[in-house]
Amino acid sequence: MGFVPDSINRLIEQFAKFPGIGRKTARRMAFHLLNASDETAVQLAQAILDMKTKIRFCDICGGITEEETCEICLDSKRNRNLICVVEEAADIYTFERTNSFHGLYHVLGGVLSPLDGIGPDDLNIDSLLPRINEESEIIVATNPSVEGETTALYLAKLLNSRGVIVTRLARGLPVGSDLEYTDNATLIRAIEGRTSL
Amino acid sequence: MGFVPDSINRLIEQFAKFPGIGRKTARRMAFHLLNASDETAVQLAQAILDMKTKIRFCDICGGITEEETCEICLDSKRNRNLICVVEEAADIYTFERTNSFHGLYHVLGGVLSPLDGIGPDDLNIDSLLPRINEESEIIVATNPSVEGETTALYLAKLLNSRGVIVTRLARGLPVGSDLEYTDNATLIRAIEGRTSL
Repeated sequence: MGFVPDSINRLIEQFAKFPGIGRKTARRMAFHLLNASDETAVQLAQAILDMKTKIRFCDICGGITEEETCEICLDSKRNRNLICVVEEAADIYTFERTNSFHGLYHVLGGVLSPLDGIGPDDLNIDSLLPRINEESEIIVATNPSVEGETTALYLAKLLNSRGVIVTRLARGLPVGSDLEYTDNATLIRAIEGRTSL
Repeated sequence: MGFVPDSINRLIEQFAKFPGIGRKTARRMAFHLLNASDETAVQLAQAILDMKTKIRFCDICGGITEEETCEICLDSKRNRNLICVVEEAADIYTFERTNSFHGLYHVLGGVLSPLDGIGPDDLNIDSLLPRINEESEIIVATNPSVEGETTALYLAKLLNSRGVIVTRLARGLPVGSDLEYTDNATLIRAIEGRTSL
């Protein structure tokens, strides 16, 4: 855009780097901030810097926290034998919102992806091993993508050999969906995983 | 969300204040920034503060600039008798993107809205008067909303009495829409087909 002052253009570029934020939205955000109070802008800038300074990875699960160990790992009411393995720290809060999982988490920090050169050593797998015992159940909650499935199979092989129960989230019809619009792969999984009524 | 560290929650709140950014997108942005490098975060924070520090209003048109007078007002190739009156500074760049308007701009900083207590004295109208002469044409390019039309009629009455030609963008614009989201072709038609008020 000609004639847009540099400092606004730079801000638009920065906003447009976020996933799901296109140039139009980025431009709108920049002009919104331009019309907002100085205080609003300072608060936003401060919140960004604060977050980067304060957040660290939990030394047990690899989740995010402002302390050494996260609140979930410190929570004595949690079932310590049930560990849900997720790809990213953000996935933890997707589970927490359901209020129906009361175990612990373990964040891999990614998935196996040979094409991108990401192998087992690049993931947070070693730190999972000291956390398991013969009574553990590990729920592998990687995404239902090719890489997610590959990672799940790898973990299952590794952990089964240590006598641990390894489970995977059920695949099937999303609640509230319509059979007519269900893709074949999902329907095949739903048939395979049918449950007794 | 329980267990999300405070500093992330605060950042999510800040992002969710932007128009068109819901809580899910805000959360996604915050976690994206968490995984980004420290440098990226600092750059974003700096871009926000820079923009607020450097941007000021052009002393002629009320548009935005980093100098006293904006590049458009300083551009000697522009037709100084043709002034496009817009609601917000951001509207200028919507026109500039069409590459088919070669006059100047004047930013009102809003529209007449008696219900919100916004009258002529609250708008940047006084500074428009010294800019006009008997050869001026003023294109009133307020949004095609009720307030925008009211403002256009007010300006037409004020300026016609001074012998100035006042025009309005053609009804190529879909009623109820927003200038910011108008496609270039429609906007070019609207400039070409402007009609006398």
